[in-house]
Amino acid sequence: MQIGPLKLKAQILCGAEAAMGPGKADLLEAIDRTGSISAAGRDMGMSYRKTWLLVDSMNRCWRDRLVDATAGGGAGRGARLTPAGREVLAAFRKLEARLAGVAGDDVATLAAMLRERPAAG
Amino acid sequence: MQIGPLKLKAQILCGAEAAMGPGKADLLEAIDRTGSISAAGRDMGMSYRKTWLLVDSMNRCWRDRLVDATAGGGAGRGARLTPAGREVLAAFRKLEARLAGVAGDDVATLAAMLRERPAAG
Repeated sequence: MQIGPLKLKAQILCGAEAAMGPGKADLLEAIDRTGSISAAGRDMGMSYRKTWLLVDSMNRCWRDRLVDATAGGGAGRGARLTPAGREVLAAFRKLEARLAGVAGDDVATLAAMLRERPAAG
Repeated sequence: MQIGPLKLKAQILCGAEAAMGPGKADLLEAIDRTGSISAAGRDMGMSYRKTWLLVDSMNRCWRDRLVDATAGGGAGRGARLTPAGREVLAAFRKLEARLAGVAGDDVATLAAMLRERPAAG
């Protein structure tokens, strides 16, 4: 996420794997909105394979599954967030918001010293 | 930087370019320690070309140069942080420390729901 000139990226690691991060949080929101893994992936411009790998990674990194996908209908039809999925998503967004809120003073100091764009080389 | 399962990356952008970030901050510290761009790059396992490009990028992104390199001696000899370099480095490290300090509760919630390592696929 970006706050003025500050770009911030928070991830929750499970071993070396990102169990949650900005892209996975966006994907959970898209699944919640569309009710479908394939529709969520399309909304985000990702291949079905890539989308499915992200869902699988989340489901393997957390004690409880974050996404339930029910077979039947077209490919990837019928997916929804589990209660654990909602809880992880909410805690991660809250964490991001708190990080964004704390950045004030030091960023102002830095912003004042920064050029608007890099000088020519 | 990593705080328990939380991985955090802060960058200060100048246009699309990272004017400051974890790697550039480490490089400024290495230049301050070694007094040399080439020695700093060697310490960080980077090629001289890569090191020099990072220094050049910082010097073009901030109103004042962050690193002064004086010619003479071997290649890359004689580099030091400018006052602006010290100020940007200090503000960036302070920002990182404040971000790391704020992460408590939400990370604890998330950590409790996380596996120690991803389950097998």
